[in-house]
Amino acid sequence: MIESTPTASTKATSNAKVPKVQLLLTGDELMSGVTTDSNSAMIAEKLARIGLTVRRKVTVGDDIEILVSEIDALSLDSDVVVVNGGLGPTVDDLTALAVGRVVGQPLVEFPEAIGHLKQWCKQRNYPLNEANLKQALLPKGATVIPNTAGSAVGFSVEWNNCLILCTPGVPSELRLMLDLDIASLLMQRFNQAVMPDITRLQMFGLGESSLQQIIYDRFPDWPEGVEVSFRAGVPTLELKLTTLGKGQEALKSMWKKKLMESVGDCVVGEEDATLQQAVVELLAAKGQTLTTVESCTGGRIASSITAVAGASAVFSAGFVTYSNEMKEALVGVSGETLSVNGAVSEAVVKEMVKGALKKSGAGLGVAVSGIAGPGGGTPLKPVGTVWVAWGNASSINAQCFLIRRERKLFQQMVSAIALDLIRRQLLGVKTAPAYFSTYGPTN
Amino acid sequence: MIESTPTASTKATSNAKVPKVQLLLTGDELMSGVTTDSNSAMIAEKLARIGLTVRRKVTVGDDIEILVSEIDALSLDSDVVVVNGGLGPTVDDLTALAVGRVVGQPLVEFPEAIGHLKQWCKQRNYPLNEANLKQALLPKGATVIPNTAGSAVGFSVEWNNCLILCTPGVPSELRLMLDLDIASLLMQRFNQAVMPDITRLQMFGLGESSLQQIIYDRFPDWPEGVEVSFRAGVPTLELKLTTLGKGQEALKSMWKKKLMESVGDCVVGEEDATLQQAVVELLAAKGQTLTTVESCTGGRIASSITAVAGASAVFSAGFVTYSNEMKEALVGVSGETLSVNGAVSEAVVKEMVKGALKKSGAGLGVAVSGIAGPGGGTPLKPVGTVWVAWGNASSINAQCFLIRRERKLFQQMVSAIALDLIRRQLLGVKTAPAYFSTYGPTN
Repeated sequence: MIESTPTASTKATSNAKVPKVQLLLTGDELMSGVTTDSNSAMIAEKLARIGLTVRRKVTVGDDIEILVSEIDALSLDSDVVVVNGGLGPTVDDLTALAVGRVVGQPLVEFPEAIGHLKQWCKQRNYPLNEANLKQALLPKGATVIPNTAGSAVGFSVEWNNCLILCTPGVPSELRLMLDLDIASLLMQRFNQAVMPDITRLQMFGLGESSLQQIIYDRFPDWPEGVEVSFRAGVPTLELKLTTLGKGQEALKSMWKKKLMESVGDCVVGEEDATLQQAVVELLAAKGQTLTTVESCTGGRIASSITAVAGASAVFSAGFVTYSNEMKEALVGVSGETLSVNGAVSEAVVKEMVKGALKKSGAGLGVAVSGIAGPGGGTPLKPVGTVWVAWGNASSINAQCFLIRRERKLFQQMVSAIALDLIRRQLLGVKTAPAYFSTYGPTN
Repeated sequence: MIESTPTASTKATSNAKVPKVQLLLTGDELMSGVTTDSNSAMIAEKLARIGLTVRRKVTVGDDIEILVSEIDALSLDSDVVVVNGGLGPTVDDLTALAVGRVVGQPLVEFPEAIGHLKQWCKQRNYPLNEANLKQALLPKGATVIPNTAGSAVGFSVEWNNCLILCTPGVPSELRLMLDLDIASLLMQRFNQAVMPDITRLQMFGLGESSLQQIIYDRFPDWPEGVEVSFRAGVPTLELKLTTLGKGQEALKSMWKKKLMESVGDCVVGEEDATLQQAVVELLAAKGQTLTTVESCTGGRIASSITAVAGASAVFSAGFVTYSNEMKEALVGVSGETLSVNGAVSEAVVKEMVKGALKKSGAGLGVAVSGIAGPGGGTPLKPVGTVWVAWGNASSINAQCFLIRRERKLFQQMVSAIALDLIRRQLLGVKTAPAYFSTYGPTN
């Protein structure tokens, strides 16, 4: 049998560089799977920005005995334990009680927390009830961590030479607490005066491996001080540029500029930018309006655009023309064009755009017609074939793609491609990538 | 300081009824948050079906020392440990190596696993390479668990009187392994000859607490042998009826029938049924067709329907009429109706349905017009106000709701309500619930 046990201490000594961080996620809903944990990723990401790595996550239900045992064991084995959840007003919320038992302190009313609760309730015109007041009961000797977005304050205690941070389970509250207080608290504790400086770019049209290869090929002299990392999302890919240490900002700006000169057409925006946001913002900036005509995406493009607040200023009408008859009736595609070329063809998507521009009065239009599957494919037009047309009254482009993905993913990707083609048109970019297509553009 | 530690044994003795189960999730991608864990929910759900509860989950990265220490510690403290992930062909896949070290056995080639790999590669016309062959190296003395969907077999070992089950991280492979082998293996081990019999009903229009109250009020004699549980989803609520033991099927059928007589109008379907599937299936069964006219939902209803394979048989056209002008131009709402009543009104949504039926030739239509926010509200029509109309050429109904949720959730809920109203119309149900509205129906 091997010797190590989970309590075998590998904690950082005062001189060591890497503090050991562990997470404890609490809640019955996380055990049963009713709620999918996204908080631990957020905590990992926020801590990574200040150079801390999460070594291990433990998830347990709302059981006081298990919580007490777990918190104590983790504190013996960590420099920092982040406890998430269990700060709410109900009987299931046991974090303060558990931490109190671990450190052998009674729960007492914290005037700071009472003040916060009173103000929070007053702002919302709620009465301050017994359940709320429970949230002001914290282990004697704890330090309050402000919660700027919710009723439950966070708190920290020291135990076994470990900092135990208790944080709320509501993601919006957790995010602000991490940004506003916990980051600086940890930087101070571990003498990390330098915050990594991170720029996140949301990209579309290039896969992770292609982008890696491009950077490798075109920038053999890429500096070590500017770290590049990727995170694949659907449909965008996040590229992160990270620098550590002061005075690196100019270096990062320079290399970001070089990167933009090379692949800037694929950058949708910074931070949490989305394709639909980029399109709505560009349309608004240029005083343009857009219309959509969708066959295989069935309304998904219009739905993405109208999910952006303020879309009404740039989008007034969309058409879902699922059948051939409706392509004729709603946007005036000619019956002959349909019968000669078939619904999934360059001629038809171009006529769809033309008709929609006329009917809606919009300045720009985009149309898609394709075979989402699982049925409907032919040898010449297999499932996954899709034509996209986009343009204005004076010029309409079209391109064919083969997107071999299951129905819903196909619809998602085609919608994203359509939005990206409009984005490129608005930016005056003449080229477009092959996207996820398994063969190149045919037009 | 308290006494308990995570290794303080609370394992089930041979006579105890509840075996202690813990999960170990492995993978750097789970630590960094690149991948969101959904496997643990699946494992919890599958084990719950055979009466086993997961007590604790631990998540660690791909680090051999941590894995060895964790597996050993968990085995000391559990009757069953399910290890998930790390069975793949790359150097990051360390599960077999870690388990081998824990039990003090070398990795050896398993002919059974080699045979599986050969067949797997042959079926796909892949060469059998070195990396694949690594997947046939398991700790000496282990028992192979077949993988019917992927290249990596699972395996189990006994250690510290604990059954350690090593399973693949790919969800589709995991699901089949749990269903086909692990369930029966665990039932055998813990003498649970009887599999619980579960019926899952997807419901819409009633909240969890209302449904609980209804069952409590109307069925004071509900039998203990038929367990009722809930799982809140968006937008549907899952109700689960579970019976244990043979000969309970008739009892469950009887109480399910009583339940259906009481709240059957809110049951969308069984198993993984969705509102849009139910609508498409009902339309097809009745030979009916549907059209949609959307303002505040911006194409989401059409998009939900067309996400269902086979939607083209029942859905030919949808309209996104985001502006007043387009409500006039595309579906013929009169300018007077708009100016007298405003776009968010009973008269306008009714005219939207009427116009869409005419333009599309569909037999049934549904229209929505509301204020998704964050802007656009007035004291009389605050953000969240929405009118829905639905019906056929001879009769159109309308109802007003106030859905106070942020923009995207508002759009999701309104789309679901519109689909449900059509579902009820197709079923001939004359009533509809108040849904999520903060005031009752006004019509």
